[in-house]
Parts: sequence; structure tokens; C-alpha cells
Amino acid sequence: MGVVVSLSGARDPQVSLAPLVALVQEDMAHVNRLILDRARSNVELIPELARHLIDSGGKRLRPMLTLASARLCGYEGDAHVRLAAAVEFMHTATLLHDDVVDESNLRRGRKTARLLWGNEASVLVGDFLLGQAFKMMVDVGSLGALRILSDAAAIIAEGEVMQLMTAKNTDTTEDDYLAVIDAKTAALFSAAAEVGGVIAGKPKSEQAALRSYGRNLGLAFQLVDDALDYSGEQATLGKSVGDDFREGKITLPVVLCYRRGSAEERSFWQRTLHDGEIGEHDLGEAMNLLKKHSALSDTMERARHYGAIARDALAIFPESKPKSAMLKAIAFSVDRPY
Amino acid sequence: MGVVVSLSGARDPQVSLAPLVALVQEDMAHVNRLILDRARSNVELIPELARHLIDSGGKRLRPMLTLASARLCGYEGDAHVRLAAAVEFMHTATLLHDDVVDESNLRRGRKTARLLWGNEASVLVGDFLLGQAFKMMVDVGSLGALRILSDAAAIIAEGEVMQLMTAKNTDTTEDDYLAVIDAKTAALFSAAAEVGGVIAGKPKSEQAALRSYGRNLGLAFQLVDDALDYSGEQATLGKSVGDDFREGKITLPVVLCYRRGSAEERSFWQRTLHDGEIGEHDLGEAMNLLKKHSALSDTMERARHYGAIARDALAIFPESKPKSAMLKAIAFSVDRPY
Repeated sequence: MGVVVSLSGARDPQVSLAPLVALVQEDMAHVNRLILDRARSNVELIPELARHLIDSGGKRLRPMLTLASARLCGYEGDAHVRLAAAVEFMHTATLLHDDVVDESNLRRGRKTARLLWGNEASVLVGDFLLGQAFKMMVDVGSLGALRILSDAAAIIAEGEVMQLMTAKNTDTTEDDYLAVIDAKTAALFSAAAEVGGVIAGKPKSEQAALRSYGRNLGLAFQLVDDALDYSGEQATLGKSVGDDFREGKITLPVVLCYRRGSAEERSFWQRTLHDGEIGEHDLGEAMNLLKKHSALSDTMERARHYGAIARDALAIFPESKPKSAMLKAIAFSVDRPY
Repeated sequence: MGVVVSLSGARDPQVSLAPLVALVQEDMAHVNRLILDRARSNVELIPELARHLIDSGGKRLRPMLTLASARLCGYEGDAHVRLAAAVEFMHTATLLHDDVVDESNLRRGRKTARLLWGNEASVLVGDFLLGQAFKMMVDVGSLGALRILSDAAAIIAEGEVMQLMTAKNTDTTEDDYLAVIDAKTAALFSAAAEVGGVIAGKPKSEQAALRSYGRNLGLAFQLVDDALDYSGEQATLGKSVGDDFREGKITLPVVLCYRRGSAEERSFWQRTLHDGEIGEHDLGEAMNLLKKHSALSDTMERARHYGAIARDALAIFPESKPKSAMLKAIAFSVDRPY
């Protein structure tokens, strides 16, 4: 495949999420309790569906960013826990609505909520979680944090609409693609990191550094996600390969491959992604083309570029355990096997 | 029909929305400009779809409540305009998601957004409008108003899930039904009225009075809405009759009629609403049964009960033009032809 992604690499503490996980472990236990508490409702379906999402084994990277940023800034209160839970609820609400929009049946190898409880429930429980997220932010009472997170909420939705409109369009440029992931993924990473500095009362320059760290980490993370969807390594982890291909999603690997390809190859992408006519051997053929044009390895290169920006964004902070963990999270994001 | 609903009545200023409309006319022009401005986006689909909703000719009762409450409390700033626009965006987002959940094709006699642009766009533009609503609230900077409106957002979604779970269930009691409309309709009316008092810095007792006014007006409004759906008067206004019947919605007229009916009549409701087997003459039969059991006129009676509570809630305020307009809005809501 030409993709530098190895399972053994993830065990190297330099490219591991472990230091970040260890750093926020105690805070994260509070976040998890708050998440369960705020997903409660007398309307049975809500906690039932929420529990499905909470147990789905996501990495919880976004709330970890809020917690780590707060620690980096020496924050001593408990508002970071509520903001982190709010960030995770915003993310969960987006996933619920995304699966409805994309008609996805599987997420992280498990049946999606919309398949189990229907599109209707997914739309409405997403709305409920978004409402609860805002309630938690209001509880914190920081108008600065509220502004950043409500801006992110609008931008994320805008990015999703943008993605819907460019869906299956093989003419998508790298810039178009970047605009979409900047809005639908990087905006929440960015806001999640920034609010940690805001509640700590740090100067604008440090808030801006955290915002830039989050944004570029988010871009790198999404790029790698899109490359991994076509990676053989995924299969060894019991994850499905080619979900994006089957859903006709135009991600950077495809953008690069389409633009670099021959007329005949472009017809292949047109037929499979635009027209949705996918035969038994087409995923294999797609993977051959991606390899031929180094589309996956170049997508990873792009990810490393944004990772480098994220790294430099943190340079103004003095060395510390949180900073080290946040830097390793970048290395993990650009070099992860899952 | 036995329903006291007359077109001529609406022209009587005692039962007219006209005084309220006149009271807030100038503010409402600002709200409308703000709504257009905040529905802007570089993603073309968003303003296009938003414009469809904005032009759809709703009464804009909810934002008018915020404006009128602020006036009643002698508020002099301009925050009420932004909160009113936020309230309308929250309502619009709910309508977008509702139509997806209910698979509705028509709203106020026009094609729904989901029919014109698809469910996906409706879900995502709803999310965008909700994000913009929160941004406007944050702009105002009143944590009190933010708390009230974010609470309402979570409660509305909870009410929608509740409705989804009780849908087509003919065993629904009047209490079950009230719990649903309390959450899905009255919560926003209540919050819309209350925040007008909050930004005016009025004491808790007056905020509570406005909250109670809004809530009970909302209950009355929804009850009348549910009765009107079966009213012949609707047809004369070019509106469709029996939408709720065709969608299998269990509203109070049906709850009363089902419980008061014979075993044979209950089978009729089971077949039509629960099983969804609706023949050509079934709407006519439903209307006959509703008349036989005085279900529409008794639904209107219930509405008058909540209207009376709303009226008493305002009693603590001295006489004024805003108060008079807000009282007349109650009379309109319980006695309106549309």
C-alpha cells in the first residue's frame, strides 16, 4: 500500500495516545459519569440509544483535548469536565445525524443507531444531546467558551451541508475537500482545545495557539481517517475496509487519484463513486489505483504537514507533561493504525 | 361540528392577533432582517432552503411573544430582537426535523423542505439554524436567557422523542398527550415569553408569570391546532383537513373520542390510526365520531381552560397596551379560525 502505518508503531510512546490518556484519566472518569448522567431521561428511548453510542468505544479524542488544554494552562477548577462532556455530546449528536444523512448501517464495526432504532429516533436524540450540550456549557457560565462552541456548532452543520452538496462529485478539488473537513471535523477539534485555555483565563495568544493546535490536529486526523478507510491494516483490526468507497464519498485519496489518473481511470471513479455502480472487484481495483498513484501515502504526507503545524502551534508553551502528551497525540494521529 | 370557530370572530379585536402584531411591528421588522442575515451562508443550499421556510407565512407567534414580553416589562435595549430571532430559528429547526420524522409532504399547504431538498438537507440545515440560534443568544450575553432557551431546546427534543414513542398508540391518555405537547410546543412558548422579562431584569415573580403565560398559551394553541385539523373551517381557508388523521397522529380529539367510544368505534380508530389502513370514507367517519362524542368542542373547552390560566398569569402586571395585546392573543389562540 505504501502507507506507513504499523501496529507496532502505535506501541512506541512517541506515537501513542497513551500519555494523553494517562494525563486526563481522572478527569475523564468524571466526564464519563457526567455523560451518563446527562443522557438520562424519563423517555426510555433516550438513555437506551445514548448508551449504545457511549459504549461504542470511540477514542474520545475531542473531550481529551479540552481536558489536556485546561491542564496545559494550569486550570484548577472543574468547568473543563463539563465543557469536555459538552464537546463529546456535540460530537455524538453529529454522528447520529451523519449516519442518517449518509444512510450508514455500520459505525466502528457496530450497527448504527439509525439501523437499530430508526432515522426518526436518531434525528431527535441527536437534537436532545445537542440541547444537553448547550445546557452544560451554560452551567459553566463562560460566555467566551459558549461563543466558541456555538460558532463551532453552526460551522459543523455548514460543513455537513457542503459535504452533502459535493457528495459523489469527482470534480472535487483538494481545496474543496479541505474546506469540508475544516468545517465538519477540524472546527470541533479546534473549539475543544481552545476552550481549555479560555476557562483558564489565558491570554489571546495562547488561546489562538490552542485553537491552531486543535484545528491542524483535526485536519491531520481526518486525512488519516480517510486514508485508513482504504488500508489493509484496518482489516487486521477487524474493521471494515472501503466504507467510504461503497458510500461514494469523495475523500482526498480519491481526489488525488482521480486527478492524476488516465481518462479510463477517471471513468472508473465516475462509474463507481458518482453513478454508484460498484461490482465485486471494484474495491480491489480502487485500491490498486490508489497505490499506483501513491494516493494513500501522499494523503498521509498531507496529514504530516498539518501535524507539523499543530506541533509548532504548541511551541510557545514551556515544556510540561501536558504539552508532551499533546505532542505525542499529534504523532499518534498521523501514524495510527486505527 | 359543534366547534365554536368562526371567521367573523377573528375580525373582532377582542379575539384578534392584530393588536399584538401592531405592538411589535417595528421590532418584528428588525427580527425579519436579522433572520435573513443569519440564514446567509456561502453554502448555497442553506439560504435557499431557509428562504423557503421564512417565506412560508407562519404567524411568527413565538418571536412576537419575546418582543411583547420585553415591551410589557419596559425593556429599552435591542437584545429582545436577537432573542426573538433565535426563538424563531429554534422553532424553524424543529419544524425541519419534525417533517423528516413524520415524513410530511405538506406544511401550511406548501411542499415541505424535505420533499423539495431531501431529508438529508432538512436535518443538516435544521442543525445549522440551531447553531445560529445559539450564536445569537450568546451575542446577547444573558446567561439567564441562555439557560432558559437551552433548557427548552433539550425539553423540545425530549417531547419529540416521547411523541415518536407514543405515536399511533390509541391507548394514549389525556395526561400522556398533555406531557407531549407541554414539551414539544409549550416549552418554547414559555421560554419565548420568559426571556423578555429576564433581559428586562424583572423580578423572579414576573419572570414566572411570563413563563406561565407562555406555557398555557402554548398548550391552548396546540389544542386548538389539533382540533382545527379536523375542522371544516380549515377547508374554507384552503387548508387541508385530516393531515393528523392520515399520519396516524394521536391528538386530544382522538384520545377523547376513542375513550368515549364503543368497542366497534375503537376498532375503527385502531384500524385507521394504529394499523394505518385508511379508506376513502374513513376521514368522514372519523369526523362523524368526533362530532358524536363532542370531541372537538371539548378539546376547545380544554383550550379555554389553559387560556384562562394564561390570562390569570398576566394579572399581576398593571394595565398597559402590551398587556392588552397579549391578552387578546390568548383570545385569538383559543378562538381562531386558522
